[in-house]
Amino acid sequence: MGSKKIVYRLGSGCELEDIVVGNIYEVRVQGFAKFGSFVYLNNHIKGLIHVSNVKTDHKEGEILYVNVRNIRDNGNIDLEEISIEGDIEIKTVSCKKSGTRLSDLKNKVGRNVTVEAEIAQIKQTSGPTIFTLVDETGTESAAAFIEAGKRSYPEIELGDIVSLSGEVMMRNGQLQIEVSHMMALFGEEKEDVKKRIEKALDERARPEDIPFMIESEVLENLKPEMQKVAYLIRKAIFTNQPIILRHHADADGIVAAVSVEKAIISLIREEGGDMDTESHLFKRAPSKAPFYEIEDITRDLDFALKDNVKFGQKLPMILMMDNGSTEEDEPSYRMAKVYGLSIVVVDHHHPDESTDAYLDAHVNPYHVGGDFGVTAGMLGAELARMIYPAVEEHIRHFPAVAAVGDRSEAPERERYLALVADSYTEDDCKDIALALDYEQFWLRFNDGREIVKDILNIKDNYTIHKNLVSLLVKEANLAIKEQMDTSLPHVKDSVLENGSHLFTIDVEIFAHRFTFPPPGKTSGEIHDLLCRKNEGKPVVTLGIGPDFVVIRSRGVLMNIPQMVRELREEIKGGGVNGGGHLVVGSIKFVEGMRNIVVERLIKKIGEFPVE
Amino acid sequence: MGSKKIVYRLGSGCELEDIVVGNIYEVRVQGFAKFGSFVYLNNHIKGLIHVSNVKTDHKEGEILYVNVRNIRDNGNIDLEEISIEGDIEIKTVSCKKSGTRLSDLKNKVGRNVTVEAEIAQIKQTSGPTIFTLVDETGTESAAAFIEAGKRSYPEIELGDIVSLSGEVMMRNGQLQIEVSHMMALFGEEKEDVKKRIEKALDERARPEDIPFMIESEVLENLKPEMQKVAYLIRKAIFTNQPIILRHHADADGIVAAVSVEKAIISLIREEGGDMDTESHLFKRAPSKAPFYEIEDITRDLDFALKDNVKFGQKLPMILMMDNGSTEEDEPSYRMAKVYGLSIVVVDHHHPDESTDAYLDAHVNPYHVGGDFGVTAGMLGAELARMIYPAVEEHIRHFPAVAAVGDRSEAPERERYLALVADSYTEDDCKDIALALDYEQFWLRFNDGREIVKDILNIKDNYTIHKNLVSLLVKEANLAIKEQMDTSLPHVKDSVLENGSHLFTIDVEIFAHRFTFPPPGKTSGEIHDLLCRKNEGKPVVTLGIGPDFVVIRSRGVLMNIPQMVRELREEIKGGGVNGGGHLVVGSIKFVEGMRNIVVERLIKKIGEFPVE
Amino acid sequence: MGSKKIVYRLGSGCELEDIVVGNIYEVRVQGFAKFGSFVYLNNHIKGLIHVSNVKTDHKEGEILYVNVRNIRDNGNIDLEEISIEGDIEIKTVSCKKSGTRLSDLKNKVGRNVTVEAEIAQIKQTSGPTIFTLVDETGTESAAAFIEAGKRSYPEIELGDIVSLSGEVMMRNGQLQIEVSHMMALFGEEKEDVKKRIEKALDERARPEDIPFMIESEVLENLKPEMQKVAYLIRKAIFTNQPIILRHHADADGIVAAVSVEKAIISLIREEGGDMDTESHLFKRAPSKAPFYEIEDITRDLDFALKDNVKFGQKLPMILMMDNGSTEEDEPSYRMAKVYGLSIVVVDHHHPDESTDAYLDAHVNPYHVGGDFGVTAGMLGAELARMIYPAVEEHIRHFPAVAAVGDRSEAPERERYLALVADSYTEDDCKDIALALDYEQFWLRFNDGREIVKDILNIKDNYTIHKNLVSLLVKEANLAIKEQMDTSLPHVKDSVLENGSHLFTIDVEIFAHRFTFPPPGKTSGEIHDLLCRKNEGKPVVTLGIGPDFVVIRSRGVLMNIPQMVRELREEIKGGGVNGGGHLVVGSIKFVEGMRNIVVERLIKKIGEFPVE
Repeated sequence: MGSKKIVYRLGSGCELEDIVVGNIYEVRVQGFAKFGSFVYLNNHIKGLIHVSNVKTDHKEGEILYVNVRNIRDNGNIDLEEISIEGDIEIKTVSCKKSGTRLSDLKNKVGRNVTVEAEIAQIKQTSGPTIFTLVDETGTESAAAFIEAGKRSYPEIELGDIVSLSGEVMMRNGQLQIEVSHMMALFGEEKEDVKKRIEKALDERARPEDIPFMIESEVLENLKPEMQKVAYLIRKAIFTNQPIILRHHADADGIVAAVSVEKAIISLIREEGGDMDTESHLFKRAPSKAPFYEIEDITRDLDFALKDNVKFGQKLPMILMMDNGSTEEDEPSYRMAKVYGLSIVVVDHHHPDESTDAYLDAHVNPYHVGGDFGVTAGMLGAELARMIYPAVEEHIRHFPAVAAVGDRSEAPERERYLALVADSYTEDDCKDIALALDYEQFWLRFNDGREIVKDILNIKDNYTIHKNLVSLLVKEANLAIKEQMDTSLPHVKDSVLENGSHLFTIDVEIFAHRFTFPPPGKTSGEIHDLLCRKNEGKPVVTLGIGPDFVVIRSRGVLMNIPQMVRELREEIKGGGVNGGGHLVVGSIKFVEGMRNIVVERLIKKIGEFPVE
Repeated sequence: MGSKKIVYRLGSGCELEDIVVGNIYEVRVQGFAKFGSFVYLNNHIKGLIHVSNVKTDHKEGEILYVNVRNIRDNGNIDLEEISIEGDIEIKTVSCKKSGTRLSDLKNKVGRNVTVEAEIAQIKQTSGPTIFTLVDETGTESAAAFIEAGKRSYPEIELGDIVSLSGEVMMRNGQLQIEVSHMMALFGEEKEDVKKRIEKALDERARPEDIPFMIESEVLENLKPEMQKVAYLIRKAIFTNQPIILRHHADADGIVAAVSVEKAIISLIREEGGDMDTESHLFKRAPSKAPFYEIEDITRDLDFALKDNVKFGQKLPMILMMDNGSTEEDEPSYRMAKVYGLSIVVVDHHHPDESTDAYLDAHVNPYHVGGDFGVTAGMLGAELARMIYPAVEEHIRHFPAVAAVGDRSEAPERERYLALVADSYTEDDCKDIALALDYEQFWLRFNDGREIVKDILNIKDNYTIHKNLVSLLVKEANLAIKEQMDTSLPHVKDSVLENGSHLFTIDVEIFAHRFTFPPPGKTSGEIHDLLCRKNEGKPVVTLGIGPDFVVIRSRGVLMNIPQMVRELREEIKGGGVNGGGHLVVGSIKFVEGMRNIVVERLIKKIGEFPVE
Repeated sequence: MGSKKIVYRLGSGCELEDIVVGNIYEVRVQGFAKFGSFVYLNNHIKGLIHVSNVKTDHKEGEILYVNVRNIRDNGNIDLEEISIEGDIEIKTVSCKKSGTRLSDLKNKVGRNVTVEAEIAQIKQTSGPTIFTLVDETGTESAAAFIEAGKRSYPEIELGDIVSLSGEVMMRNGQLQIEVSHMMALFGEEKEDVKKRIEKALDERARPEDIPFMIESEVLENLKPEMQKVAYLIRKAIFTNQPIILRHHADADGIVAAVSVEKAIISLIREEGGDMDTESHLFKRAPSKAPFYEIEDITRDLDFALKDNVKFGQKLPMILMMDNGSTEEDEPSYRMAKVYGLSIVVVDHHHPDESTDAYLDAHVNPYHVGGDFGVTAGMLGAELARMIYPAVEEHIRHFPAVAAVGDRSEAPERERYLALVADSYTEDDCKDIALALDYEQFWLRFNDGREIVKDILNIKDNYTIHKNLVSLLVKEANLAIKEQMDTSLPHVKDSVLENGSHLFTIDVEIFAHRFTFPPPGKTSGEIHDLLCRKNEGKPVVTLGIGPDFVVIRSRGVLMNIPQMVRELREEIKGGGVNGGGHLVVGSIKFVEGMRNIVVERLIKKIGEFPVE
C-alpha cells in the first residue's frame, strides 16, 4: 500500500483564511466564463480554474480536485485542476459556524443566509424542487431550481444533513429560502451538526413532567413508558415524520385516539403548520378488526410508499391504540419492519410477550401489574396531556367516558368520574359512549372526525353536542330493542353439568343482519338481559354464527384461549382459531364443522368450575 | 340601575361630518407611530390617539373606547383613550351608504372600494384568508393577510354581514378585493344591510312564472310548492350554499335528478362559476336504498362537516328526489336536523304525514289529489325549468322517459309523449329508460355523469347517444333473457283460495346473483311474463330470498303495509318489516323465520278479494 | 347553379407579399379603434376596415369577408367589409412555413414565435385556458386568456391542427406560449401540417428493431404485431393520449404490466413529463375477474369521460395484458367502442376469433402456433424493451419470474431462466412469483405500485427486496399450510369409470374464507398435493362452492368448454356458464342446482379417456 494523497473538503463554516495555499481541495463546478471555470470550495467560497489550468471537460455540478495556487488580495482564488492516480484520503476541514437558525428566518427576509439542517422531505414540483428543512428550532422550506420538473441536487437524499445558502423570500406569505448553493455534510462536520440538532430536538421533544389527572399506582408505574411514547410522537412532529394512528373502533378506542389526535393537531398548529400539513402529517384510522389486519398494513404501506415517492415524505410512524399488543398483530408488524417503520403501542389488552420484539415503545397496564380496567381511553388522555398539556381542558371528561364505555371496574373509573362530576354525570358518560359506538357503526371505518368531536363535546358547541348524543342514544336504543324483540324468542336454554345456565342464539338467522347492533353486541345485550333475569347464578351466553361463536359469561371460571387451543388440537379439519380474554371472547372455525365445534365447546364450558 | 354610558359605533357608510366632537366612540387599533396609535372609527375613517392620550398597552386589532377631542381642518381626528367603569350602551350610527355592488367590481380594478356583503365562505390558505362575499348582485372573493397560514379577522364568522374596504385586484384573471379593513356590522346597521341583501336576493331567487310544458291539473295544484323549491335552490346557489341531491337509482329518479342538475349547473355557470365552483356547490348521489339510509346521511354529514372546517363552506341543503317522503327517511332527517340542514323533497311515493315535520318544502302529487303516475321525472323536469328556463330545450323529452320508465298510467304520460313525438317514439323512451336502469346497475352508486348525459342525449352527440342506448338495451335484454331461462323452470305454481294464481320463485338459489337483473327486477320480469300468460286472471308473484320476499301482483286487492303490520304482530321473533305500495312491495324478516313468514303471507294474500 | 364567389383564407405561413389587392379574404375581428376595426387576415397579418368601409356591427372574434383595397408602402392594409349573397367557395392560400418547432421553444424565451401543432388537451382553469400542443418534436403548452374562467377560442377543439403566435414565457420554471393569436387550419393547409406532424410522429413512434433477449420462434413470429403495439403506445405518449393498463391480478399479469409501466414512465420522463403528467397519462389497474368486466369498463369510462370534460383530456387507449382475448371481454369492448376507444391486447390465453373485431392490435402466441407457455410476462418484458430499450437492465429477470409463476412448460422458460441464472435461481423466481400473488391478494385491486416494485427488485434496494420477498413467502406458506390442515381431512375420494381418481372438497364450508389462499388456489394446492401422492395416476380435483366448481386435472383428456356447453344445454334452469382451458377451468351455476350439476359433471369427466 503506497501513501495516500490527502484531499481536503472545506466545511461550510470555513472562510477564506481557512484555505491553505498548496493544499488539494475537492470542489464543485458552478459555472463557466470565457477565461475558465468557476467552482465552489464549500457552500459559499468560489474560486477560478483558469482555462490554462483546466484539464478535462467540465459539467455543471461536477466534482473536481484542485490545487490552490494563490489567494489574491482581493480574495480571488486561483486554482489548478489536478488528476490523482492512486488512493485518496479525504479530510473534512471543520470551521466554526455562524449559520442562521430556522426560527430566525422570519427576520431575514430579503437577505442571504447559510443554514444547517436535516432534509425532512424532498418534493419535486413541476417547477423547482422543494426541500423541507428541520433544525433544532423548527421547520422551513427551501426551493432549488435547475430545469422545469428536474430534480435539483439529486445527490441530496432524505435524511441528509446539509449546509445551504440562499436568499430568504416570502412566497404567498410563506418563508422560503431560494437556494444558491447546497451540499451534504460528511464525516466529522456532519456528526457535529447532527449531534447539535439531535440534542436540541431531544430536549424539545422531551415531554413536561406533569402529574396525572387522578391518583393511580398503575399510571405512576407506566409513566416512564408513557413519556417515551410522548417523546417519540413529539419528535416525529418536530422532524416532519407522518404518524398513522390505528385504533379499535369502539368508544374506548375512539376516546384514546381522539385525545392524542387533538394533542398532535394542536402541536402541529403551534409549530406553524396549516391544514395541509395536518393532513399529510397525521391520519387517524379506525380498524375493522380488533387487531392490525394484513389488509390494513398493506393499504397503509401502499399509501405511505407512494407518498414517499410522490411527495418525498418520510415513512410514517405507526401508533396503535386500544389495539396492537397481541400475537395477531405480528404478521402486520413484520411487514412494517421490512420498511423499518417505527411502531408504538398504547393498549390495555392482555399483551403477548413475543410482540414486544417489534415495538419501539409499549404502554400496557399488564406490564406493571394493572389490567384492562385501566382503559386505553384513560391512557390516551393522559398521554395527550404529555404531548400537549393545554389539551387537558378539552379532554378532561374523556377517561370517564372510556371507563364506562369499556365497563372498567378498576379504581381509576370512579376517580375519573369524580373529576368531571360537576359537568358530566355517569349517565352522560354512558350516553356519550353508546353514541360513539352507534355512530362508528354507521361511519364504517371512516374517522368521522367532526361528528365524533361533536359527540365528545370538544367543538365548543354544547347544543349540537347535547342534541346529537341524545338523538344517537335514542336511535341506538330503538335498534337494540328491535334486535332483542327479534332474537330473544329464539334463545335456547339449558343447564350444564357444572350448574351454569347456558343460553344459545343463532345470530345469523335469528337476528337482523348488517345493521346495529352487530352480532357481537347483540350477543352481549342478550347476555346482560339474561344475567339480570338470573341474578346470582352462573350464566354463559353463546351467539352462534355460521363460522363463529361469540362467548359471554358470568360466574364461570373458564379459559377461552385454552379451550381454543384444545379444540384446534382435537378437531382435525376444524380450522379453529380465536381467543380474547379468559371469560369473554370469540371462536372461529370452518362452517362445515360448526356442529362439532359448538358441541365440544359446550361440553368444555360445562367442565369449568363455577364461582 | 345607574345610568349607562353611551358609546357610539360608527357605521361603515359614515363620513367625517357624521362624527360628533365630544362623543365617545368604539374604535379598532390599526397601527403605531412614535407619536401615538392610529385607530379606525369605522372601516375607512382613521384617527390618532396621541401618546399623551394613550392609557393602556395597545395591540393591533384591539378594540378601544375614545373621546373625540377635535377634528382638524385637514381632516385629522384627535382622540383620547378613555376607560369606562359601569354599564355601557352601544349605539350604532347608521349613515347613508355609497358602497360598491359586487357586480360592479369588474369596472373598478386597481381602485379602492367599500362593499357590504354577507360572508358565504372563509377559507384559510397557506397564505391569506379568503372570504367569499355575497351581496344582492353576485358573489366575489376578498383576500386578507396577517401572517402565513394565520386566520385574518378571526372575529368574522360565516354568515356575518360585513363592511370591507380594499383594492380591487386581478389575480390569475380573477377579481379579488385585497382587504385593508373589514368589520362585522351589528345592530340596526347590520339589519339594514341584511334586509337589503335578503330582499334583493329574494327577488333574484324567485323563479319566473312560466306555464308547464303540458296541461295538468295536478301540476297546477303543485305549482306554489314547486316554485318554493325552485326558489330555495336558486337562493342556495346565489348565497354559495352547497346542495346534495340524493335520488332513487332508477330511470325515473335519474331523469328527475339530471334535469335539476342541468339547471343548477347552468345557473352556476351563468353566475360566473367554474368547474371547481360546480363541484364544491353541487353533488348528485344515487342512493342504494329507496330511502335515505343512515349510512348515507352519515357519509354526507361526515364530508359536509369536514368541508365546513377545511374550506369554510356552508353546510349543505339536502334535496331528495324520487325518494324522501316516508317514515323510513326520518332517522336520517333527525341526524340532518341536529346540524340544522335544510331538507327539500320532490317525490311521488305515498307520503307519510309525520315526515313533513322535517322538511322545508315537499312537492308530492298525493298532497293535491294526484298519485305516483305523476312521476318524479316529470316533476324534476318542470322544476328544472323554474330554476333555469333555458334548460327546457335540452330536457323536453325527459318526462316521457320517466313516464314509461315508471309505468305511469296518469294522463300526463300521453301528453309528455305527445310533446316530443316528433323526436322520440314511445319505444325510444322505453329504450332510454331501460338503458338508464342497466347502466346504473353497473355504475353501482356512482353518478356516471357523462355516460348518463349521453344516454339522455343532452351532450349534443346524437351518434354516441344512439349507439350507446342501442348497445345497452341489447345487453340488458340478453341479461334478462339469461335470467329468465335460468329462473322460469323453477317457478312454482298454485291457486289460492281467492282464486288468484300464485307463482313463487326462490331468487337466491334459482337466479344468477350479483348481476343484472337484480332480485327485484328479476321478480318483476317473471311476474310480467306470467301475467301475459294468464291474461285476465288475478296473478301474484313472490320472489323469495333468504330474508326477504318481493311481491308483485295484479288483480288482487291486497294491502301490503297492512299485512306487514299483522305479520310483525303475529310472528314473535320474526323481525318482520317492509312495505311499499298497496299491491307492490317487499317484506324483510330474519332468515330463520322464512318458512313461517312466507306461509302466513301466502295465506293472507289468499284472503284478499280479487278484482 | 350560379357561379360561386371565391373567398381566400390566408395560410399562417403567408406574408404581406402573398396578399392580392382586389381579392376577397376571410378575416377575424381583433379589436377596435375610433377610426375602424382591426382584423387578422391570418395569425399575424393585421389589416384595417376604416369606419367608412364598415357594414355591420362587429364583435371581437367575429369572422368577416373583406375586399383588399390597397396595401400601403408602410405595410398597412386597407380593407372593405363586403357581404356576399349566394354561394361561396373558400380557397386556402398556403405559403411556405418558417414556424418554430416545439422542441426549440426553450431557446426562444421572451420572443414571439409562430407554431403549428395539434391540440392534445384543452384545460379550462379559473384563469386562462391552457392548450396542450403536440408537434413532431414534442409537447408544450399555451395559455390564452379572455376572461376569468371563460374558455378562450371556443371554436378550437381537441384534435384540431392550429397555427398560433405568441410570446414564449417561463412560468414556475415551465415553458408556455402566451397566445396572441390562434386559428384552426383547414383544407389543404391543415392537411399539409397534419401530414407533416403525423409523418414525423410516425417515425418517432416506430420502435427500434432490437433482437429479443432469447431465441424463440414464437416471439420472432409475433414481432411485427408486438412492434405495432409498441408503436401505438409510443404514439399515445407522444400525442398526450392517456393509457389505461388493465391486467390479470396474478404474478404473470403483474410482471407483464409492470414491465410496460416501467417503459412508459421512463418514456414520459424522457419527454419532460413530471409526476402529474405520469398520473394523468398512465394508470395500471389489476382486474378482479380474469376478463374485462362490465363493472370495470363502466368505471374506466366514467372516469375517462369526466376527465375529458374537466381537464380536456383525450379519451384513453385501453391496453389489456394477460387478459382480454376472449368472448367474455366483448361486452366491455362494445361499450368502449361506442366512445371510439382504441383497444390493444397482449395475452397468452386461448383467443376467440370474434374478439379481434374490436381490437387495434392483438399479440397472442396462439396466432403463430405457440401456446400459453409463452406467457404474458415474457411478452410484456420484450414489448417494454421495444417501447424503451433502456428498460432492459431493470426487467431482465421478469420473464423468468412469469415463467415459473405461470408454470410455463415452453422452451422459452429455460432460456429466460438461463439468462438471469447468475443473479436469480429458479427458486428465487418462484419466491418472487408467490410473493406477488400473496401481496396482490391483500392489495385487493389496488396496484400497490411501490411494494410491487420492491418485490420485483426494480427500486435499487436489494435488502428491502430480499427481506420483503422472504417475509411474504413465509407468510404465504404458513397460510397455505393452515388451509391445507383445515381442508384435507374433508376431501372425498372416489374412482371414476375411466379409472381416474376423483377428489372433491367443499371449499365453502371446509376452508377458511376471505383469506389467502382463496378457493381457486386452495383447490390447486390440494390437487398438487394429491397428484404427488398419486404419482403416475390420472387425477381430477373439484373445489366445490355454493354456485361454482373449480376443476384441476392431470392425465384426463377432458374438454371443459365442451362440458360447459353440454351441461348448459342439458340442465334447464341450471344457469351453467364458465370455461377456461381444456383441462383446467371453472364452472358457474345457480346455487339451487348444485347437486345436479356436480353429479352430471362428474359423470361426464368419467367418460373422457385417460392418458
